[in-house]
Amino acid sequence: MSPLGKSKSLSDLIAARFAFDPPSGAQADAGPAYPTHHLQLAHRSHRQFKSTPVSDATLQLLFSCAMSAPSKSDLQQTSIIHLESPASRAFIATNIPSMPWISTAPVFLLFCGDSRRARRVCEMRGTDFGHDPLDAFLNAASDTAMVLQNFIIAAEAKGLGCCPVSAVREITSSLADFTNLPSGVFPLAGLCLGYADDAPAVSVRLPLAATIHKDSYNDSALETIITDYDRRRGLVNGYKIQRHVDAFGMAEDYGWSTDKARQISRTDRLAFTQHVKKHGFDM
Amino acid sequence: MSPLGKSKSLSDLIAARFAFDPPSGAQADAGPAYPTHHLQLAHRSHRQFKSTPVSDATLQLLFSCAMSAPSKSDLQQTSIIHLESPASRAFIATNIPSMPWISTAPVFLLFCGDSRRARRVCEMRGTDFGHDPLDAFLNAASDTAMVLQNFIIAAEAKGLGCCPVSAVREITSSLADFTNLPSGVFPLAGLCLGYADDAPAVSVRLPLAATIHKDSYNDSALETIITDYDRRRGLVNGYKIQRHVDAFGMAEDYGWSTDKARQISRTDRLAFTQHVKKHGFDM
Repeated sequence: MSPLGKSKSLSDLIAARFAFDPPSGAQADAGPAYPTHHLQLAHRSHRQFKSTPVSDATLQLLFSCAMSAPSKSDLQQTSIIHLESPASRAFIATNIPSMPWISTAPVFLLFCGDSRRARRVCEMRGTDFGHDPLDAFLNAASDTAMVLQNFIIAAEAKGLGCCPVSAVREITSSLADFTNLPSGVFPLAGLCLGYADDAPAVSVRLPLAATIHKDSYNDSALETIITDYDRRRGLVNGYKIQRHVDAFGMAEDYGWSTDKARQISRTDRLAFTQHVKKHGFDM
Repeated sequence: MSPLGKSKSLSDLIAARFAFDPPSGAQADAGPAYPTHHLQLAHRSHRQFKSTPVSDATLQLLFSCAMSAPSKSDLQQTSIIHLESPASRAFIATNIPSMPWISTAPVFLLFCGDSRRARRVCEMRGTDFGHDPLDAFLNAASDTAMVLQNFIIAAEAKGLGCCPVSAVREITSSLADFTNLPSGVFPLAGLCLGYADDAPAVSVRLPLAATIHKDSYNDSALETIITDYDRRRGLVNGYKIQRHVDAFGMAEDYGWSTDKARQISRTDRLAFTQHVKKHGFDM
């Protein structure tokens, strides 16, 4: 028994994962990797990249690793659009002008929930797709989020940096048109990828006392925990700019909770909701 | 610059991630880890476990790693319920009797999308939660799926095995009652965790030709790809039992596509949809 495949080569593992139809180039790309827990704990989003390109062999390895994530009912409801042409890169950079790292990242990927493939499988095999629309949406979205996370870890293990871009959902309909997304396929997030040229601080997380519960959900201490979190976090990830000052004024004590409370007071992503309800998920 | 934190100790990384309020026990648990890409490519779900317990120190490390995943707008919309008491374990095992590994796994965790914490932050800071219900649901679900994937990789890097259990959504309302999930919090998946005592084959994945698209979504070759995938996959992950024979009869050639087409012809998880629409996500 070799529970973790440690004794096998990466190319053997890839061949097994894809049943002997391995992606080309993957074999050449078996370099050293960083220890997993270190990678996870040191994760940061990067927004400045060196011009060094990411090789096709590396991308194939990362796709292979990412797609090895568990999949709800083995339905594999994820598609990735590699926005590679100059026209594609110009489209996405122009339409999300607030994020200049989209244009400077060597690679930009679009991670999509894909319920269409399953529906085509039904057509091929003479059955009718019967899932409830919200369940179908959730399964495709959560499969895709798991693939995205797996991709990020794989990239970081190759010494690459990433920045997820959920703002692609602000331009869902035009992006779906541009990339020919059919009904049943929706963008979950973009991802900037490249060799990082910045060294941001890690984003400090809520203490496990707020997020891990024993047997029963209990957030009776939440206010105390968040007040202390605001204070400790401020020592590392302080806010230089206050949000929505026009509506809320300048706060003397501006931490994570005030920033988030202001941010989520605004309606967000209505166009995404309208798009998916019209294109395959009639909830 | 130490882009990947390789030169730092795990305990230093944990302290930084939680701003100097590190989970107790994590420091003691810095053992060797397996190479990341190997882990990812060799991923399998495990359904038989040794009786060896998982230490608290290990759990704290895994929670810390998992919660380091990127989070939409830094909202951190995940809660994990550790179903630890004998009553909790009996509840979950009894209510999902088709999966005996739920009762034999040393640890069972419930990964929940949590939009309540953000809403309480709004209350604390005097704003009104304004997000569209579908967007709020998607953000909590995808944050949680990323934490779940990060947890699985962290566990495998410690030599542990996992089995995600989306069937918790079959019993959403009774489970939400039992674990006191408030409005805005919903179960995404359970997770069995322990030292594996089985050696299942890896689940073979669709070729990248089906799942990775350049610039534009294109599934014109899907039927050919799936027919070949069924054949190759059958050599490794063949099906011993056909699904819904009462409705569809016995197929001569029964592969992945036929199994999936039969499976998703049935309505699934309506009770989950009804629950979340009533409890915080009025879509």
